[in-house]
Amino acid sequence: MTYCVGLMVDEGMVLLSDTRTNAGLDNIATYQKMFTFEEPGERVIVILTAGSLSTTQTVIAKLSEAIEHPDATPETSFMLAPTLLAAVDIIGNMLSDVTLEISEKMNRMNQAASASFIVAGQRAGGEARMFLVYPEGNYIEATHDTPYLQIGEHKYGKPILDRVIRKSTSLKDARKAALLSMDSTLRSNLSVGMPLDLAMIRDGEYQVSQYQRIEAGDPEFSALSDSWSKALRDSFAAIHWAAS
Amino acid sequence: MTYCVGLMVDEGMVLLSDTRTNAGLDNIATYQKMFTFEEPGERVIVILTAGSLSTTQTVIAKLSEAIEHPDATPETSFMLAPTLLAAVDIIGNMLSDVTLEISEKMNRMNQAASASFIVAGQRAGGEARMFLVYPEGNYIEATHDTPYLQIGEHKYGKPILDRVIRKSTSLKDARKAALLSMDSTLRSNLSVGMPLDLAMIRDGEYQVSQYQRIEAGDPEFSALSDSWSKALRDSFAAIHWAAS
Repeated sequence: MTYCVGLMVDEGMVLLSDTRTNAGLDNIATYQKMFTFEEPGERVIVILTAGSLSTTQTVIAKLSEAIEHPDATPETSFMLAPTLLAAVDIIGNMLSDVTLEISEKMNRMNQAASASFIVAGQRAGGEARMFLVYPEGNYIEATHDTPYLQIGEHKYGKPILDRVIRKSTSLKDARKAALLSMDSTLRSNLSVGMPLDLAMIRDGEYQVSQYQRIEAGDPEFSALSDSWSKALRDSFAAIHWAAS
Repeated sequence: MTYCVGLMVDEGMVLLSDTRTNAGLDNIATYQKMFTFEEPGERVIVILTAGSLSTTQTVIAKLSEAIEHPDATPETSFMLAPTLLAAVDIIGNMLSDVTLEISEKMNRMNQAASASFIVAGQRAGGEARMFLVYPEGNYIEATHDTPYLQIGEHKYGKPILDRVIRKSTSLKDARKAALLSMDSTLRSNLSVGMPLDLAMIRDGEYQVSQYQRIEAGDPEFSALSDSWSKALRDSFAAIHWAAS
């Protein structure tokens, strides 16, 4: 499985993904699930992927091919699309087409090939927007009320986000929340694993403002994880349930 | 859906269940999912149920009927079974039989009828034991290493348990952890709802030492929930991620 989360706050966006893929518990590998497309100062789009690796790889490869094609048009290359919504349409249609194509082969074997994406981006003159694209190609958008999107193993890391993330949260705090949400997931589910890819897009910069690969044993991530565990245990010890 | 959790610590056991059932989001009802069987001072067994309501109700009804039957034997009534393991066998077999029977009808409609149980109990002269019974009737047991079992929507409430529950945790703290685990689930998943049923079985008492129904708006549960939210937010604000 996978855990990817995207937070959209006033100051910008935080994208975080793990890198573990598995075909059965005895066939584990590391694959990047974060893909960055940039024309710095003009347009940035980050795609996070979850689901069947053959589907996600094929979609990313075909989208990249379309961008690099000499005859690329605003209808085929999402980097030329006039709006972010038009870009997400291109991505969603590609995901839908590839899913259908691979599923036809997989169905003969009774297997599934579905995948979903988080697409986050901003183009010069436009607002930062973030979408969750479903296997069918349709999508929903992060909003003021729900300023985060998750794909993959999303349940373990949801309670912390529900409690601390608002649209007005600082980008720094959003980054911390994304990492703690990932930390809870890593602890509780073996199919999500290090290293992590973390990207931040500051509003109005139209590029990835900061990218970081966080390896297993990263001293700063370990310290964050330990402090959080300690803080949780201390909080747990400190609060009282009057009836007990 | 449902969330039920059972914790087994040295001092005893804590069982907690929600009461929400739904057949679609527009057909929500309250049903008890905790069933207590006692012969105080001799034997106590508590069953928590998750899954298809028709299956769980039928299993509990048939098990109760077998206990009350004038010709009940140690093979038919789990309250007469010589050991807790034998009791769980009876419960598991009944669950398996009913699941099969209902599934045969349901399969015609392409619907599922599976259910799972947490069974916790102790008889005079025996140790406290806790089992998770699968729809197929087989089961696993809580151990020193993993002193808790969950059924239903278990992911939201797992991180807190993973962090604070050990076999040596006090019964009072186990109770608090069960309630906080439920609180995280209630906040993140609409299909789990108040009121809650909470039972505690102190080791060696062979009866439910304390039972409580916690209604929506219960001032003590609300206070616990608010303190926990505040503690989490404070902890979140207090810890630092050096790189940020």
